[in-house]
Amino acid sequence: MTTNASDTIRKILDDAKAAGTAILGPGDARAICEAYGVPLPKDGLATSADEAAQLAGEFGYPVVLKIVSPDIVHKTEAGGVIAGIGSEGELRSAYETIIANALRYEVGVSITGVQVQQMVRGGQEVIVGAVTDGAFGKLVAFGLGGVLVEVLKDVTFRLAPATNADALGMLDSIKASQLLTGVRGQEGVDRAALAGIIEAVGRIVTDFPEISELDLNPIFATANGATAVDVRIALDFNAAPARHRPAHDDIVRDMNRIMKPGAVAVIGASAEEGKIGNSVMKNLINGGYAGKIYPIHPRAEQIEGLKAYKSVKDVEGVIDVAVFAIPAAFVAGALKECGEKEIPGAVLIPSGFAETGNVEGQQELVEIGRQYNVRLMGPNIYGFYYTHANLCATFCTAYTVKGSAALSSQSGGIGMAIVGFSRSAGMGVSAIVGLGNKSDIDEDDLLTFFEQDENTQVIAQHFEDLKDGRAFAEVASRVSKKKPIIALKAGRTSAGAKAASSHTGALAGNDKVYDDILKHAGVIRAKTLRDLLEFARGVPVLPTPTGENVIIITGAGGSGVLLSDACVDEGLTLMKMPDDLDAAFRKFIPPFGAAGNPVDITGGEPPATYKATIELALSDERIHSIILGYWHTIITPPMVFANLVVEIVEEMKAKGITKPIVASLAGDVEVEEASEFLYRHGIPSYAYSTEIPVQVLGAKYKWARGAGLLG
Amino acid sequence: MTTNASDTIRKILDDAKAAGTAILGPGDARAICEAYGVPLPKDGLATSADEAAQLAGEFGYPVVLKIVSPDIVHKTEAGGVIAGIGSEGELRSAYETIIANALRYEVGVSITGVQVQQMVRGGQEVIVGAVTDGAFGKLVAFGLGGVLVEVLKDVTFRLAPATNADALGMLDSIKASQLLTGVRGQEGVDRAALAGIIEAVGRIVTDFPEISELDLNPIFATANGATAVDVRIALDFNAAPARHRPAHDDIVRDMNRIMKPGAVAVIGASAEEGKIGNSVMKNLINGGYAGKIYPIHPRAEQIEGLKAYKSVKDVEGVIDVAVFAIPAAFVAGALKECGEKEIPGAVLIPSGFAETGNVEGQQELVEIGRQYNVRLMGPNIYGFYYTHANLCATFCTAYTVKGSAALSSQSGGIGMAIVGFSRSAGMGVSAIVGLGNKSDIDEDDLLTFFEQDENTQVIAQHFEDLKDGRAFAEVASRVSKKKPIIALKAGRTSAGAKAASSHTGALAGNDKVYDDILKHAGVIRAKTLRDLLEFARGVPVLPTPTGENVIIITGAGGSGVLLSDACVDEGLTLMKMPDDLDAAFRKFIPPFGAAGNPVDITGGEPPATYKATIELALSDERIHSIILGYWHTIITPPMVFANLVVEIVEEMKAKGITKPIVASLAGDVEVEEASEFLYRHGIPSYAYSTEIPVQVLGAKYKWARGAGLLG
Repeated sequence: MTTNASDTIRKILDDAKAAGTAILGPGDARAICEAYGVPLPKDGLATSADEAAQLAGEFGYPVVLKIVSPDIVHKTEAGGVIAGIGSEGELRSAYETIIANALRYEVGVSITGVQVQQMVRGGQEVIVGAVTDGAFGKLVAFGLGGVLVEVLKDVTFRLAPATNADALGMLDSIKASQLLTGVRGQEGVDRAALAGIIEAVGRIVTDFPEISELDLNPIFATANGATAVDVRIALDFNAAPARHRPAHDDIVRDMNRIMKPGAVAVIGASAEEGKIGNSVMKNLINGGYAGKIYPIHPRAEQIEGLKAYKSVKDVEGVIDVAVFAIPAAFVAGALKECGEKEIPGAVLIPSGFAETGNVEGQQELVEIGRQYNVRLMGPNIYGFYYTHANLCATFCTAYTVKGSAALSSQSGGIGMAIVGFSRSAGMGVSAIVGLGNKSDIDEDDLLTFFEQDENTQVIAQHFEDLKDGRAFAEVASRVSKKKPIIALKAGRTSAGAKAASSHTGALAGNDKVYDDILKHAGVIRAKTLRDLLEFARGVPVLPTPTGENVIIITGAGGSGVLLSDACVDEGLTLMKMPDDLDAAFRKFIPPFGAAGNPVDITGGEPPATYKATIELALSDERIHSIILGYWHTIITPPMVFANLVVEIVEEMKAKGITKPIVASLAGDVEVEEASEFLYRHGIPSYAYSTEIPVQVLGAKYKWARGAGLLG
Repeated sequence: MTTNASDTIRKILDDAKAAGTAILGPGDARAICEAYGVPLPKDGLATSADEAAQLAGEFGYPVVLKIVSPDIVHKTEAGGVIAGIGSEGELRSAYETIIANALRYEVGVSITGVQVQQMVRGGQEVIVGAVTDGAFGKLVAFGLGGVLVEVLKDVTFRLAPATNADALGMLDSIKASQLLTGVRGQEGVDRAALAGIIEAVGRIVTDFPEISELDLNPIFATANGATAVDVRIALDFNAAPARHRPAHDDIVRDMNRIMKPGAVAVIGASAEEGKIGNSVMKNLINGGYAGKIYPIHPRAEQIEGLKAYKSVKDVEGVIDVAVFAIPAAFVAGALKECGEKEIPGAVLIPSGFAETGNVEGQQELVEIGRQYNVRLMGPNIYGFYYTHANLCATFCTAYTVKGSAALSSQSGGIGMAIVGFSRSAGMGVSAIVGLGNKSDIDEDDLLTFFEQDENTQVIAQHFEDLKDGRAFAEVASRVSKKKPIIALKAGRTSAGAKAASSHTGALAGNDKVYDDILKHAGVIRAKTLRDLLEFARGVPVLPTPTGENVIIITGAGGSGVLLSDACVDEGLTLMKMPDDLDAAFRKFIPPFGAAGNPVDITGGEPPATYKATIELALSDERIHSIILGYWHTIITPPMVFANLVVEIVEEMKAKGITKPIVASLAGDVEVEEASEFLYRHGIPSYAYSTEIPVQVLGAKYKWARGAGLLG
């Protein structure tokens, strides 16, 4: 785009701002799109039938007439669109009809004129648009056009501006993407042309942020191009300022001091049983934290055997993090003292801020934090755990089983569920963090810390919103290449109610936006709380697969069928069995057993059959992952099966062979013990479920694909 | 239809049979459709351009030309269709083009001629068809037409013939059903006309079973009618004979003797530890079965302390069921003796029949069974349990915890998973049945028995196929009005491979057919094995709701959001809270808590707050079901919560108030004990899961709606 064009657009928008215009007129909207190279049909505004006839004569028939009125949003419904006008006679009659319809539509309707447009038809009808999302900012959208877009809501979103690869990827991301490549002898559409339009729209809203919504609807895409027939641009000159985002190195430095502190102050430490300040003290001490603990209390000399201080400022040494356990009203004052003491982090357990309507009180904390460079966790949280420092900076029950999963939750209840599940399943964690109101520290800060935390191998986050979705997407895209990120986005259904003035806006149901952006950032989305927890537990246990070929070995044909279903649901590839491998498996199984995939060894087989087939599957390089279906029999009891599997895996590991293995155990209650034994030995295993083990393997694959590890 | 028309069709089909025709010519296909009142455009076959011009002159332009050739299935792809021909000149040129394209399409292509058809356009493109399904027989299909039908596969199926209500229901069952009712100012289609076409197609394939597939594609539906533009009819004169189906009263009589026998014979009873015939004997005796047990053994005098017989024929008294534990080769002989002894049921544990390729051996058993009126369970099964008679007629581990859930499985592995899960969860069952190869007794026989079994309140079935889907659908439609039926249909993905010669056939992916027919029969479909088990456990525990209004009461806001998501996923209605009820709840919760729905009582509340809000929810008649979200705190520990909920429920029950309640418990491991306690007291409760309790409630609602209990 020329500087000239840029100046023209600037003037259009400045004039609109001065005039208080919320929706640009079609001429201005076209001008902006044309400047960015969006192909449009010839077009003009007529204020009389004569003018319309003159324009149509210039463009050539057929033409379309469309009402132009600030009062009429859905032109078709108002009888304001007449297409397929083939002659001047038809045009004059159509002009009168449209004006009459508009006048009937609403008393005192304001009519700007009638748009005369060269008629474009044929090809596939699609829609390209842009919206401004509360969490993610500018987004581009692409979807199926026409009435189907509203009925099927077949649309996909990406952060704006979109790269050419993003744009091309969007064409493949809609459900009906096959329509674009050509079906039953129909030609495919010009993908480059469509991608070009998507990129242009992304640049427009990025270059001119006051453009809050943009609709190109419909666009007719053919094999030789794409033309946007209608343009709609909505403006918003009062956008909220972007959330403050510290520099990466600052985040890393501060988060390391907060999560792995050398010294912790407890503001509101208490000796009184049942008080939050007492629970925090006990958790720190009994959890085995080896750093310094400074109880802060206005009068006490000692708390839980440790010398107490009136203020953090009275402490001589350096303090890395202050845990707050005082009423909301006293938090701001104490936070200032933390600032003066140059403590880099405050863990704000107290509630009574934005979640209860006290938005100003929370804003005050944010401002103090910014003024003194204190990062804030919370308020309204349970605190956090960092097990590798034996640190339980929380009033909830202590938990110190070390492992490689870092979990966080926006909600306290979900945090407690994480602790309970972890203890019950014996899941080792590196950290559990409550983020609550997320006045400052949020999911991307945690990702930035866990990215470089040597104790963390998988990150699982529960959230209801993202305060800065753009920062999250950016950081997650990078981190997910190294460590799996699992997200449970709650509140999938709250967005429908939000009013929107454009089609794209109406389609931007919160959840579809999150779904697309998270997937594009390489984040594995958990559908349920149990999924989040099972994936956090299972994904780090599994080695990373080196290819897509999955094989099922099962003693129960029925489990094999259900495991196959689950593989299809999870997008896993059931390896097409090569003849030689098929023959090799057949040597070990009864003649009526089924080789192929699943390998059905049949139910009455001794341990040797399981052993031989599993060994073969581990040895053959063409097989990348293994799903086991066990059937409880007297001949191969559950623990015999479990022990033999672990033995084989250990032997193979000694030979340098590791592959992801998961197992489904069908049988009487002894299979529960066998499943736990297998899990403890690196094989995620589940009793009475054929789906969960496959989902866990599926999650590992989603990550490996996103991280580019499968080629 | 007149007798005359019927005779005409009969002749067309007889001629086709004589000629070995697999696909009817377009004239014959049209004649059949016309006889059943399917509206078609004017149409004729031309074998020269002159003939084509004459026909078009009669119909009026525009017209469409279509190649007619037995060798060309996809006419459009072959360049065999030219539409929008507006004049004789265009028509003559189009004729030549089509013939040329056809000759190029395939060497030696046979050309019958060119079809000249009045051109119908405008309106919504849909497809109506019929197929012959291996399990369900004749099915009608309705879906979106055009290329979208292939891309989106938006199609729905019903058993043929379809009633008018079925047909109208199909219009609402496709995903894009909104397109038919009119979107954004477009008129809706003529629903009566479309339903009429669906009914006609259903009658055609029912009246003439040799019509194996029928396609009306496309049909153009407008506000004032619908016209089928293309007809395609495929024939199959070698359909498999229908499966034998005993009369209802015979099934009930025989199944009652089999499932609740007064005397059991064990053919192949053994004293040798580890033998199947020994396990069966021990299970019968140790399970506490009070009826007579007759071990059958060629030589033994006594087995497990009971007098043994050489043959069932040597037993003096009546025998109700014979359990087989002998090798496959001896089954037929022993079965004949059972027939001669007039034993109504044989439980065929032995494998070695159809599942290993021995189809003839299995057919022999079926014939003996039919000859002597012996019903066969199996072969290739674990046997069955009927707990209320303390009957474990199985070689697997015994299980005798009495309850109201009757479960069955096609596969032995899944049967063992049922036993294990039941024991682990303490789920009482009425019966567990293995169906294996289903040579005779199948799912609909079990439904017929459990329908009238006073000990059964819910029926849960795992199957991979239905041997007689039509019988199943018919029986399930009736039984599901009285007792919930839950089905896990495995093998969702095996069908795609089946070749089909019609569009409708290609769309009849096995799983969509099962999905539609099961839903229409009132069957609740479980997606996973765990779902099947959890629903079987939870559904009979819950009282039946009396309306759709569901309320969530939660101590954790975060759980409230996830529970709301789960309600939307399950199609549950979150009650819109009336003002007076909102005010009533607000009295009990902190000012910053959120009333509305979910009622968020906030996390720090004492037991009294849970108590008051749950009491209110139970008391208010506008609320029909309650979902509880508990958050573990020191103030209201898990067992305190659990006890208070049970107390309130008991008090209300004494006043005659019962409503379905489910609970999600977030907290440390103590919530597991609390969940179990609640479950035992009629409140399905789950630790660390927000989705499973809602799914269980959702299953109850699906059943209640299908049974017409919610008005």
